[in-house]
Amino acid sequence: GEPLFDRVAFIGIGLIGSSMARAIAKLGLAREIVCSARSQATCDKALELGLVARASTDAASVVADADLVVLCAPVGAYAAIAPVIGPRLRPGAIVTDVGSVKQAVIRDVAPYLPEGVHLVPGHPVAGTEHSGPEAGFAELFENRWCILTPPPGANEAAVDKVAEMWRRFGSNLEFMEASHHDKVLAITSHLPHLIAYTIVGTATDLEEDTKSEVIKFSAGGFRDFTRIAASDPVMWRDVFLNNREAVLEIIQRFNEDLTALQRAIRWGEGDKLEELFTRTRAIRRGVIDAKQA
Amino acid sequence: GEPLFDRVAFIGIGLIGSSMARAIAKLGLAREIVCSARSQATCDKALELGLVARASTDAASVVADADLVVLCAPVGAYAAIAPVIGPRLRPGAIVTDVGSVKQAVIRDVAPYLPEGVHLVPGHPVAGTEHSGPEAGFAELFENRWCILTPPPGANEAAVDKVAEMWRRFGSNLEFMEASHHDKVLAITSHLPHLIAYTIVGTATDLEEDTKSEVIKFSAGGFRDFTRIAASDPVMWRDVFLNNREAVLEIIQRFNEDLTALQRAIRWGEGDKLEELFTRTRAIRRGVIDAKQA
Ligand SMILES: NC(=O)c1ccc[n+]([C@@H]2O[C@H](COP(=O)([O-])OP(=O)(O)OC[C@H]3O[C@@H](n4cnc5c(N)ncnc54)[C@H](OP(=O)(O)O)[C@@H]3O)[C@@H](O)[C@H]2O)c1
Ligand SMILES: NC(=O)c1ccc[n+]([C@@H]2O[C@H](COP(=O)([O-])OP(=O)(O)OC[C@H]3O[C@@H](n4cnc5c(N)ncnc54)[C@H](OP(=O)(O)O)[C@@H]3O)[C@@H](O)[C@H]2O)c1
Repeated sequence: GEPLFDRVAFIGIGLIGSSMARAIAKLGLAREIVCSARSQATCDKALELGLVARASTDAASVVADADLVVLCAPVGAYAAIAPVIGPRLRPGAIVTDVGSVKQAVIRDVAPYLPEGVHLVPGHPVAGTEHSGPEAGFAELFENRWCILTPPPGANEAAVDKVAEMWRRFGSNLEFMEASHHDKVLAITSHLPHLIAYTIVGTATDLEEDTKSEVIKFSAGGFRDFTRIAASDPVMWRDVFLNNREAVLEIIQRFNEDLTALQRAIRWGEGDKLEELFTRTRAIRRGVIDAKQA
Repeated sequence: GEPLFDRVAFIGIGLIGSSMARAIAKLGLAREIVCSARSQATCDKALELGLVARASTDAASVVADADLVVLCAPVGAYAAIAPVIGPRLRPGAIVTDVGSVKQAVIRDVAPYLPEGVHLVPGHPVAGTEHSGPEAGFAELFENRWCILTPPPGANEAAVDKVAEMWRRFGSNLEFMEASHHDKVLAITSHLPHLIAYTIVGTATDLEEDTKSEVIKFSAGGFRDFTRIAASDPVMWRDVFLNNREAVLEIIQRFNEDLTALQRAIRWGEGDKLEELFTRTRAIRRGVIDAKQA
């Protein structure tokens, strides 16, 4: 297809950034791709992998001539990145991102963007438990949803261009208000990760003997949680710190439901257990029907 | 190899029973396989699939000439099955099982076994979220652990024979006290299932709109829980009712740990979150190194 962009600059190039860079290169969506990362090692790795034409630890220097800037760092880093890149953005440039929370991103980035620079926040609902530029692959976004949360009054042409990029990646597009995004993702992503971290954490506190048995016999269900709880610690720290209210509210509901199950077990109320365990099967069918399994 | 058994009788022939029947047939470990199931439909299906030479809803009639009887029904059914089959077991017969809890099984079955019949309780730590005789496959147990919990004074020859069967299936054998089994599995299997049921249950209580969004965007982590929470409701009801104490104890610990995380999020204690999220990665490495991933 026709290139959509002249120069795309990634700020952060780990799992998500490098997957996008690979997809852009594969599909010929940009004439040049450049990047910045926190460490020189990651910049070197991105060059070595042939993901980018230029890489620098100085974010300001790579955004200067970019018509698309994609923030792909942990969301907690945005507040420091935005004031650095803001003054160097050229008029008409689009700034988008892939952060797992959206209200905080708008809060931290929008104030630093000059007139004529367009903010189109986004979140691809796709990922793995691996991180870094070597973990990415061009097909990561195929048949997955990408949610865009343009603030009221966002530039339509800019939104269309970002949407078109995701469509070319093979994603399905969805538009939402940032606050709604943060509520829905608190349930579908943030709570599951928190619970997985908790349960694996509970196991790390056991005596050594029991801990090695837990690992040995993990095929009974536990191992699936260990995979989720192997996700990047900094990324997830930032998600929870930046979606505090929605996450705390859903933990509260989860807690109430767990307490009810606990009581049912304590009092031997088999009917209640069976009723819930039957109800949850319908959701699985929904996930399979929606081709998200 | 040489057949280990003359006639093997399965009481219950769903995912686990039918996987064992397939493995026994494939490896030629028995001269004949027969079964009983609760419903005529399952008996018919087992015959149609060629899993057994004979099938009956009357458990007593199939165990009469068996030298190995394998209980593969939900553990809550054992208390009704044992008094039915007990009087028909022939001297020297071995009774084993695959139930996910072990103390309750010994409690419910042992009292009904006549002199000279040997009880060797077992639990293959392998499974899927599917159930019924069509869901099984001969390779289910390969490279998975099988835990045997023979009571003190169990017949050694009988234990050896059951262990040999699992080795031929490709499983690794482990011997444990039943009470220890129930504690370890409460962590590695029962709690993960309970948590998955809870979180998916929490989602089923949401308004219709949000619920359909949760399904749509489930790739963020939630979908893995829906798979676990699609497991058989009766089987899991019976597990929780029959391993009440160990499960309640581990829920208690989990709750404390979740409360601590909740506080860390509320008070913005990023260091605590990051520290835990880093610690849990080590367990994942353990699971991968133990080839249980
Ligand atoms: N992983 C997922 O499943 C997933 C899914 C959807 C969205 N997301 C979102 O995608 C973003 C990136 O996640 P990821 O999985 O790609 O992470 P990742 O693989 O860990 O990569 C993060 C990248 O950001 C850079 N970085 C870190 N701190 C920085 C800072 N202070 N300033 C500038 N760059 C910095 C890192 O550079 P160094 O290597 O030099 O540290 C690295 O290149 C996050 O906002 C996350 O919420 C992730
Ligand atoms: N699924 C797993 O991941 C897994 C893993 C390890 C151990 N286990 C244990 O294996 C056992 C069987 O589980 P499964 O997954 O194979 O279950 P399943 O696929 O649901 O099959 C259960 C079988 O038991 C029969 N049954 C049910 N109630 C019965 C009763 N009251 N009397 C006689 N037969 C009855 C069923 O017959 P109908 O079809 O006629 O109802 C069916 O043939 C359980 O004790 C479970 O704890 C399961």
